Amino acid sequence: MASTTRSAPQDKAFSFNILDRDPSSQARRCKLATPHGTIETPAFMPVGTIGTMKGVTPEQLSATQTQIMLCNTYHLQLRPTADVVSHFGGLHSFIGWDKPILTDSGGYQVFSLGRINKISDKGVAFQSHIDGARLWLDAESATEIQNKLGADIIMCFDQCPPLPCDRETIEVAVERTVRWADRCRNAHRREDQWLFGIVQGGLDIDMRRSCLDRLVEIGFDGYAVGGLSVGESHEEMVTILEALESSLPAEKPRYLMGVGMPRDLYASVRLGIDMFDCVLPTRNGRNAYAFTAKGPLKMRNNTHMLSEAPLEDGCDCYTCNNFTRGYIRHLFMAGEMLGPTLTSIHNLRFFQRLMSRMRDLIQTGELETILTEFPVCNAGATGTLDDD
Amino acid sequence: MASTTRSAPQDKAFSFNILDRDPSSQARRCKLATPHGTIETPAFMPVGTIGTMKGVTPEQLSATQTQIMLCNTYHLQLRPTADVVSHFGGLHSFIGWDKPILTDSGGYQVFSLGRINKISDKGVAFQSHIDGARLWLDAESATEIQNKLGADIIMCFDQCPPLPCDRETIEVAVERTVRWADRCRNAHRREDQWLFGIVQGGLDIDMRRSCLDRLVEIGFDGYAVGGLSVGESHEEMVTILEALESSLPAEKPRYLMGVGMPRDLYASVRLGIDMFDCVLPTRNGRNAYAFTAKGPLKMRNNTHMLSEAPLEDGCDCYTCNNFTRGYIRHLFMAGEMLGPTLTSIHNLRFFQRLMSRMRDLIQTGELETILTEFPVCNAGATGTLDDD
Repeated sequence: MASTTRSAPQDKAFSFNILDRDPSSQARRCKLATPHGTIETPAFMPVGTIGTMKGVTPEQLSATQTQIMLCNTYHLQLRPTADVVSHFGGLHSFIGWDKPILTDSGGYQVFSLGRINKISDKGVAFQSHIDGARLWLDAESATEIQNKLGADIIMCFDQCPPLPCDRETIEVAVERTVRWADRCRNAHRREDQWLFGIVQGGLDIDMRRSCLDRLVEIGFDGYAVGGLSVGESHEEMVTILEALESSLPAEKPRYLMGVGMPRDLYASVRLGIDMFDCVLPTRNGRNAYAFTAKGPLKMRNNTHMLSEAPLEDGCDCYTCNNFTRGYIRHLFMAGEMLGPTLTSIHNLRFFQRLMSRMRDLIQTGELETILTEFPVCNAGATGTLDDD
Repeated sequence: MASTTRSAPQDKAFSFNILDRDPSSQARRCKLATPHGTIETPAFMPVGTIGTMKGVTPEQLSATQTQIMLCNTYHLQLRPTADVVSHFGGLHSFIGWDKPILTDSGGYQVFSLGRINKISDKGVAFQSHIDGARLWLDAESATEIQNKLGADIIMCFDQCPPLPCDRETIEVAVERTVRWADRCRNAHRREDQWLFGIVQGGLDIDMRRSCLDRLVEIGFDGYAVGGLSVGESHEEMVTILEALESSLPAEKPRYLMGVGMPRDLYASVRLGIDMFDCVLPTRNGRNAYAFTAKGPLKMRNNTHMLSEAPLEDGCDCYTCNNFTRGYIRHLFMAGEMLGPTLTSIHNLRFFQRLMSRMRDLIQTGELETILTEFPVCNAGATGTLDDD
């Protein structure tokens, strides 16, 4: 096992600095500099799975003040393959997004989407969910693929067990995740990419802590908490983050994978998390679900038929500046592509406004004010505004 | 029957002026002023059927330098209804497009999409193609609906027979079309909308001429040629336009409905047509068909997998400025919405560049040069560049 003294040469563009700390929680405001620009944290990364934010152009995405997007290694390796992306000079130039990008390792998708044929300590044999093609992914190939894709931040190949899950399965997954992380660390070849380790361990606090300690011993540029947002309750998620907070290296970025709803974001920011990713803004946007500070709207609801209000009063996005709820409802009722596009643009901007406001409130030491400004961040927030 | 002396009060914003005439054809360059802005002709109107250019925002549409868009009365009356649109202050504010709009009358769609229950001189009883609802449309209601929608230019309710068609059916359709036009003229209530008559008559030159003469006798703000682009050959279309050219009032706008492919546009511009509409840029764009001056590309073709070229060299559209053929092919292969959006944006800009260049060449008396700059305008142009 490697020691903490091992350190690879690194692009000087990278740095991570803590700017402010919230006096009443573990929340912190930081700056993460990468070769493609600086990210202010806490940051929300929307997900452009196959190299596109579904229904939204890079120009429209940039206008939502998204600082960094996530792309999925599993999907990109199936189509168009990392070799094709590399031919175009990497993800940034291929997809037309010159700001930071993070790629996941494919671990989560192999286990959630692929048809697994065999898992061993060596790696995973699986079949494509698209055409059944027989494929192989392991620590070395997941890292090599991410080196070819060329994101600013890449992730270790991990084993993400579903929840609930028996203790033995979790133990095996944690053991593999740590060993694979070490192999990823050794396989990583690019100075202009930061590599993050991923903490697994299900809802078992001891296993979570052990996994984290061993990852810290190997030494990574940042640490992610994986294996959450897979069916557990809000409270269970909070319990795990509380247990890990003091052990997560304070001077490194902390990333909670696959989260999430506004109340999850707020609770996790309070527990010191710096980065998040989730498909919610676009997936829900495509399904006529619009986020607002007071709660969601279902845009197919009859209530909106004659409404001249924007999706959200005071929102500065393209959608709210130009279109009424009535028009957006019409688009969804008529099955028009513009409905998903406009609602996704609003939702993306909503998440960026929420994070931006949390950063401001951390700076002024008033983070709890977010509960007044964005009531949807309350742990008990449920239901929709239009009672659909 | 009304006489040509009848004239309704009119918004002073409207005017139509011929600026240049091509020395070697009937082509002309004109300016058509409307309450929502001035259109330079020959002009191509893309079609935003249900109140949206499919997959494209008004901002993106405007960036293609589209001057005027067409919306379909039939579709809008089914969803969300003219009353709802009127509640929002009319189409311009409802859909967020502050430039000129033209609405068709619904006649074409009733006959092509609706399930006809009964046609009589009074009007048409039909069923919605969406939910089978029993509906009625006639000259008065089609005009009233268009008055409520509030487009800058509206169309008479006509009967458009399919081709080929027997003489008696065409005679009946022409007779109804003329009588209904007169009723539309009487029913029209808004000074800030111009009303165009529609010439029917199938491929029968005598009936076409007779229909036009009777419409001119009634007197309209512009004249459209309908019932073409419904299956006839390029040469048949040209024959009809040649026969009508000298009888179409020179001082009024001339609009060829539903056309079309670049070669049809060029041939029709030479025959004095000022305005066109067609779904081709967006419908073909959604199906991975990209227009270029030299011929179309099928973007799913393997040829494009590693191509770093834009859809069209020299094109100034958002798509060509930012994305490669390889990326666009990837989007179509992965079924991503952005593929249709980016290709539609390029196609819309292609049609606007083609029309703009034709206007420039009419001004300098060199219209035929378009055949060198846009070889796709040659009557014999067929096939695709990628041999798909």
